[in-house]
Amino acid sequence: MKITISQINPKTLDFKYNFTLIQQRLKESDVDSLVVFPELALSGSPLYDATKYTQTYEESLSFAETLSQEKKDFIFGLPIHQNGEFFNSLAFVENGELKALSTKKNLNQFDKGFTSGEGFTLVEYKKQTIAFGFLEDLDDYLKKEDKANVIICCSNILFTPETQKKLLTELQPKIRKAKTPIILVNRCGAEGSYIFNGSSFFMLANGDLSKQSPLFEENSLQIDTEKTEKYNQSPLPRIEKMYHAAVLGIRDYFHKNNIKKALLGLSGGIDSALVVVLAVEALGKENVIGILLPSEYSTSHSITDAEASAKKLGIEYHTIPIKENFNAALTALQPIFEGKEPNVAEENLQSRIRGLIIMGIANKIGAAVLNTTNKSELAVGYGTLYGDTNGAIGTIGDIYKTDVWEMSKWINRNEEIIPWNSITKAPSAELRPDQKDTDSLPDYDVLDKVLFLHLEQSKSRQEIIDEGIDPQTVDKILRLVKINEWKRHQVAPALRMSNSALGIDRIMPIS
Amino acid sequence: MKITISQINPKTLDFKYNFTLIQQRLKESDVDSLVVFPELALSGSPLYDATKYTQTYEESLSFAETLSQEKKDFIFGLPIHQNGEFFNSLAFVENGELKALSTKKNLNQFDKGFTSGEGFTLVEYKKQTIAFGFLEDLDDYLKKEDKANVIICCSNILFTPETQKKLLTELQPKIRKAKTPIILVNRCGAEGSYIFNGSSFFMLANGDLSKQSPLFEENSLQIDTEKTEKYNQSPLPRIEKMYHAAVLGIRDYFHKNNIKKALLGLSGGIDSALVVVLAVEALGKENVIGILLPSEYSTSHSITDAEASAKKLGIEYHTIPIKENFNAALTALQPIFEGKEPNVAEENLQSRIRGLIIMGIANKIGAAVLNTTNKSELAVGYGTLYGDTNGAIGTIGDIYKTDVWEMSKWINRNEEIIPWNSITKAPSAELRPDQKDTDSLPDYDVLDKVLFLHLEQSKSRQEIIDEGIDPQTVDKILRLVKINEWKRHQVAPALRMSNSALGIDRIMPIS
Repeated sequence: MKITISQINPKTLDFKYNFTLIQQRLKESDVDSLVVFPELALSGSPLYDATKYTQTYEESLSFAETLSQEKKDFIFGLPIHQNGEFFNSLAFVENGELKALSTKKNLNQFDKGFTSGEGFTLVEYKKQTIAFGFLEDLDDYLKKEDKANVIICCSNILFTPETQKKLLTELQPKIRKAKTPIILVNRCGAEGSYIFNGSSFFMLANGDLSKQSPLFEENSLQIDTEKTEKYNQSPLPRIEKMYHAAVLGIRDYFHKNNIKKALLGLSGGIDSALVVVLAVEALGKENVIGILLPSEYSTSHSITDAEASAKKLGIEYHTIPIKENFNAALTALQPIFEGKEPNVAEENLQSRIRGLIIMGIANKIGAAVLNTTNKSELAVGYGTLYGDTNGAIGTIGDIYKTDVWEMSKWINRNEEIIPWNSITKAPSAELRPDQKDTDSLPDYDVLDKVLFLHLEQSKSRQEIIDEGIDPQTVDKILRLVKINEWKRHQVAPALRMSNSALGIDRIMPIS
Repeated sequence: MKITISQINPKTLDFKYNFTLIQQRLKESDVDSLVVFPELALSGSPLYDATKYTQTYEESLSFAETLSQEKKDFIFGLPIHQNGEFFNSLAFVENGELKALSTKKNLNQFDKGFTSGEGFTLVEYKKQTIAFGFLEDLDDYLKKEDKANVIICCSNILFTPETQKKLLTELQPKIRKAKTPIILVNRCGAEGSYIFNGSSFFMLANGDLSKQSPLFEENSLQIDTEKTEKYNQSPLPRIEKMYHAAVLGIRDYFHKNNIKKALLGLSGGIDSALVVVLAVEALGKENVIGILLPSEYSTSHSITDAEASAKKLGIEYHTIPIKENFNAALTALQPIFEGKEPNVAEENLQSRIRGLIIMGIANKIGAAVLNTTNKSELAVGYGTLYGDTNGAIGTIGDIYKTDVWEMSKWINRNEEIIPWNSITKAPSAELRPDQKDTDSLPDYDVLDKVLFLHLEQSKSRQEIIDEGIDPQTVDKILRLVKINEWKRHQVAPALRMSNSALGIDRIMPIS
């Protein structure tokens, strides 16, 4: 049997766009090939509360009916409305006629609003039996007697650097046991914080991987289920996957929201130096604008490093000192600040003035701001709310500081794209004289180790101490993580790269 | 059988506090009374991802064991860890000995991390049979043959003005059919955005309500299941319930986070005039500070109305004109703004300067900022991100503008507490000369009607037009709701008063 895996990047609720994408793929496909699209290919995903609106189902039905005018054989995902209930569904169409439906039974976090359906469906096609359904329902199907010649799974799997390996490892013994080849079709692309994995594949009945689509990119992959060639995987290193994921996340955020220009503050530090590289890769240098906002506490190397970044990349940049605005704010606040010790209030003012100026430019020219907060900072609240945490999208908010350095070094593997000085110097917020991050925080290698154990592995205090970290450091870090939860409810939503993205996967009580 | 309904207000993850609260109630209770506490009484709720940490279960077990030293009979909720799985559980303790457990089967949105358990449990107690379990599992229990003399349900029901009526109306026919009296024990109080309903009750086997605890407040209610007296409900009007809910939400936010002082901007408009009344009621006038931040576009009545508010309530207030800060920002931005038409950028700068100054004061004196954005504004994005939308907690973010007026009039029913001028004048953001909200938005009565149909009743475009609203107005409003979704991911979390709280219950795709 000939099958085409059509790994596409639909836009949420843009039925017309997705319809055109699917129609184009059908027109291009071989006459005798069954074309398989991902879960919710017609509507895009996640749908969130759009599942509650009848308009969603009306548009879906209308475009689905038009699709059937293509006299082709295909499977595609769409939301359907039946007898007052809403289902996440897959339609099997043969020669333009609806032949069978599968409705998702085991609903996941994105299926809010859908009713639990029937799971896998068996269908006769070209004298063979196909079992088709959602990945979430595969285990239920495999528990029953398997009568199919081939299994087709559609899904919307989220990216993490470990996703694909974990999926293949878990699937292999099940498929070996079932002795039935499986085709898994994923979507790719990003929607808001969510990055989808792509990497659709064909796995042989013996559990060997036979063909695989690329990570992240749209692709058509031709399968002949009779052929049993083996695919030799050479997965990208973790940091490279995350780099491409961040670039994709930025690109899709801007393209899908029809925003052309990206703005970001360039401090001369490593975070903004990395993000500007990601942004230029995603949007082109002509669409990225850097803003340097030096204060009286900025060191001269901060300014020269930031300028070096901008010049190396060839982007437009502007320098706007914040001293006058800081003084104006201090003058206004003088009646209240008078007689009180300097504290975090003065530091935060500077960050918020930077936010104010960047947002002012963004509003004036119709650009969107890229947030440059990393996961380590976000976790311990090292950053000013309504200042550092501003932005339309958090680009590295699910990337630890130690990974920010690693990614930067990888970017510089052949050539100094990021100033080496930004990579090697001690991190500083430069909000008071001679300030260093380590004045308030442990060294980042210790911090990130504790955060990884606590956030990714859900280790409690004692379990982290048992890993050899001293109790005072553990207590300090866990306290910072706890008391800064409230901030994470108001920061720019970050591109998700793990199963513990702060504010997305991991939410804790505020009180 | 004598039962004490112990409606308490636990603090999330403050096991020691909750333990003391429960212990105190047990000490006060009659020797022959079974004392019933709400779901997760020992841990508080929602637990969010704290369910993933073994520390949560260790603390829970340790305090539960200490509780059993009270040689009393009681039922209380706690998270438990059994054979590597986590359950939302109820423990039935008789004379200090654990007699039975019920583990929640039908998990809800707050039960992330828990495994589905066994549902209701039957237990013999004082020669009678008690069926006890979670409200979510009641329907499953009632489907089986009911053998109990009394049903005891524990729960954590969220407040909306309609919650209690809906609950009683749905329960009544089920209880009439089962012919078994039921006791339902809810928690009260607020945690972050969530306000819990309280209103625990005893319903007779004939479906009549016999006793009921108050909305929102902690309370002990004595029940004798042999007595069949009927309770005459006189529920508060909707707007009064919402008033008390907002006051409770503010009070619990500050008390549970150990924050004493609240700050808010006073514009002379109705929203801040209402919120300052709520804050004074919640925290006392000595803990509320108003900041007047007039600009060159502020009308004289704005200042006099804001001052009148502050003086009437007897709170500390300060006036800080923003003109110099606005000019400093415009000067800094001049190289970029030059030659471009004035637009929303200049307006937003003023709002963000206000936010900067209020946050500066908050950071200096260790206060938290009350956000004053209402639901109508939040829905259509009428407000500046990182300015108007700032705050630790959104006080009226789930209250429509038309309800803001109604609540204000109710507050003034006997005496002018809110300046009548703030209530009657046309709403204006005062960010440019002679600006009115209606320059950008339809009248609030039309806006709120469309929003109610769209948000609370999930009506699509055509269904709203069919209700008699003109298509242009509907399109304009739905477009604003859609394109401002991204802002709602970064605003102060609002106290929840409906099943469609923006950013809490209702989340939509950003793109």
